[in-house]
Amino acid sequence: MTTSFHPPHRTLMGPGPSDVSSRVLGALARPTIGHLDPLFLQLMDEIKDLLQFAFQTQNALTLPVSAPGSAGMEACFVNLVSPGDTVIVCQNGVFGGRMKENVERCGGSAIMVADNWGEPVNLEKVEAAFDANPDTAILAFVHAETSTGVQSDAAALCALATRHGALSIVDAVTSLGGIEVAVDKWGVDAMYSGTQKCLSCIPGISPVTFGERAVERINKRQHRVQSWFLDMQLVMGYWGGTGKRAYHHTAPVNNLYALHEALIMLQEEGLGAAQARHLRNHRALVAGLEAMGLAMAVSERYRLPQLNSVLIPEGVDDAALRSALLNEFDLEIGAGLGSLAGKTWRIGLMGFASNERNVAYCLCALEAILHRQGAPITSGVALPAARSVFDDG
Amino acid sequence: MTTSFHPPHRTLMGPGPSDVSSRVLGALARPTIGHLDPLFLQLMDEIKDLLQFAFQTQNALTLPVSAPGSAGMEACFVNLVSPGDTVIVCQNGVFGGRMKENVERCGGSAIMVADNWGEPVNLEKVEAAFDANPDTAILAFVHAETSTGVQSDAAALCALATRHGALSIVDAVTSLGGIEVAVDKWGVDAMYSGTQKCLSCIPGISPVTFGERAVERINKRQHRVQSWFLDMQLVMGYWGGTGKRAYHHTAPVNNLYALHEALIMLQEEGLGAAQARHLRNHRALVAGLEAMGLAMAVSERYRLPQLNSVLIPEGVDDAALRSALLNEFDLEIGAGLGSLAGKTWRIGLMGFASNERNVAYCLCALEAILHRQGAPITSGVALPAARSVFDDG
Repeated sequence: MTTSFHPPHRTLMGPGPSDVSSRVLGALARPTIGHLDPLFLQLMDEIKDLLQFAFQTQNALTLPVSAPGSAGMEACFVNLVSPGDTVIVCQNGVFGGRMKENVERCGGSAIMVADNWGEPVNLEKVEAAFDANPDTAILAFVHAETSTGVQSDAAALCALATRHGALSIVDAVTSLGGIEVAVDKWGVDAMYSGTQKCLSCIPGISPVTFGERAVERINKRQHRVQSWFLDMQLVMGYWGGTGKRAYHHTAPVNNLYALHEALIMLQEEGLGAAQARHLRNHRALVAGLEAMGLAMAVSERYRLPQLNSVLIPEGVDDAALRSALLNEFDLEIGAGLGSLAGKTWRIGLMGFASNERNVAYCLCALEAILHRQGAPITSGVALPAARSVFDDG
Repeated sequence: MTTSFHPPHRTLMGPGPSDVSSRVLGALARPTIGHLDPLFLQLMDEIKDLLQFAFQTQNALTLPVSAPGSAGMEACFVNLVSPGDTVIVCQNGVFGGRMKENVERCGGSAIMVADNWGEPVNLEKVEAAFDANPDTAILAFVHAETSTGVQSDAAALCALATRHGALSIVDAVTSLGGIEVAVDKWGVDAMYSGTQKCLSCIPGISPVTFGERAVERINKRQHRVQSWFLDMQLVMGYWGGTGKRAYHHTAPVNNLYALHEALIMLQEEGLGAAQARHLRNHRALVAGLEAMGLAMAVSERYRLPQLNSVLIPEGVDDAALRSALLNEFDLEIGAGLGSLAGKTWRIGLMGFASNERNVAYCLCALEAILHRQGAPITSGVALPAARSVFDDG
């Protein structure tokens, strides 16, 4: 007989999922009600409002897709890309490659604009790609690359797309709730995110938002959307603002309780305060890491406060260190991904997990294990360096 | 400011979600750990084993899709249907129509075999469709039609498909855990289910299983699977049995805690005992309803014990009655769907919700409101009739 699973209490400082607060877990476990219950429909309306707040948009088509972020990505592509469309895809990490896959599976052709992993999307290259492909229908890029910890200039990229008559699809999986995301101000046409990063909700849901131009594109499609589950015209019938709710699929009721609570926590704190908290904890972590003698992998100008890529010092056993953190400290940090595997660690400070306790705990644990492995680090200075950042506010 | 959502404690006797036990809700709310944590990978292995038990299969490719049942349906179709394929789709309710949508969106052509809503799939008609379409690649049908409460003969239909060299895709959303489901014995090639029906888990996850012939078909595909998120060759890299787990998407960690616990409860009870419980509570409910003077919508031979379609007596206000049940009794029953809207109620006795208390509570509440509406029913006899079924075992 299989027995019940009782997970340990990890501290989640990898690339997500991040620590989920007991308040969100409490909401998650409330009694399930029907997905067509009038009270649930009210909850859905509140979630829409809260997501509009988080995305900083008035977009009517703003809702949580009932599946993880990669389904949210797919929802944007299958609804907006038609066979034969040209899509410029910026790739400066893992997730640009996934966008290319999506474009091709929709029958579109992807023009790739490649940048080094660890650097942001280069605007000049994108401009050149538009000049070379004037019929481009869509520009797709990742705002916050989870695989490298790099932030790209979403406002400038969206403006560039609009200037060239293209729609923008923006991956905000790791940015939403951690750094500024301003859909309306930036003129984003479609954006998707995830719940398990800076919203500090459980994994499994993907908030999306589509602007007016995107909705118009969807309504004028000649080809049926290839996914029934992700077809926004059908999903809108259930989530849509007015009139009778049409059954499409059974909503993940309890997950939406959790998302509602996580978004309320964000609203209570305020977007600006949440961003400032992410930045302060990031600065403290970096101060500690650098005092210890470690180096960051990403230039200060482009660093994401919520995802810190650190170069692994020579001679350090990457896997053994992460195992020791997990087994001795119940602390998860992320491995490097793709071309950065074995070269970097990714230390997340996302949402609820972005707090002073976690910064201090991570620095102490890292220092202890690096010291034991004989790495060339300076002991006893990381915590005071982090502390001084906190004390400065 | 939006405030936290505290749902009432409903009794869920609609077509799903069904009541979730406190044991499963407790598991759901355990601390989130990483989706690549070694302990989580062990949990995934256990879930695979438990799903193999529930599906009664040795299929290696048995796993929970990280999205609701309609995504599980889509996972079966996008992986098995290639452009140009002929698929025979049996329709005797809402969900056959959804299968047709899926076939067409995959570029296949759907040969529809229609039966009256409220009747099972007719084997002779399917045989005739095969004779008329000898190149048919796939037969798709719904084992337990949630929209009508009818059971079709899955064993015979799968045998028919095999005899004609076609694969079978079977919708077991409402059957799994409530009536016999025997994937290997029946020779099912692909099956999907949902967690929110007779498994009594929260909604949002879809168990699927693919047999050897289906996996072979997937491996020989000439066209890339149109969905990246649901591409089983990629999903297998994460859920696959052997070697290193490749990151595909972030698994819905907490939902899988809940599914694991729900499946353990099924294992503890035993499949046979769970089926017998569903049958006994169904008989008691029917005895009570009929004693009251109500009539079932489906012939006894085809009735699903977990979903009871009841004819609405003339003169009864459908919507008012269901509202009264919800508002005065916190009791949810389902409305008729599609061509049965306004003609039937659907009373679920699924999973954890299939118990003596719910049978009695539903009968009493229905009787009280029908009596108040002046419906021609007999009062005071429903509960004793149900009681006598329980007493007989």
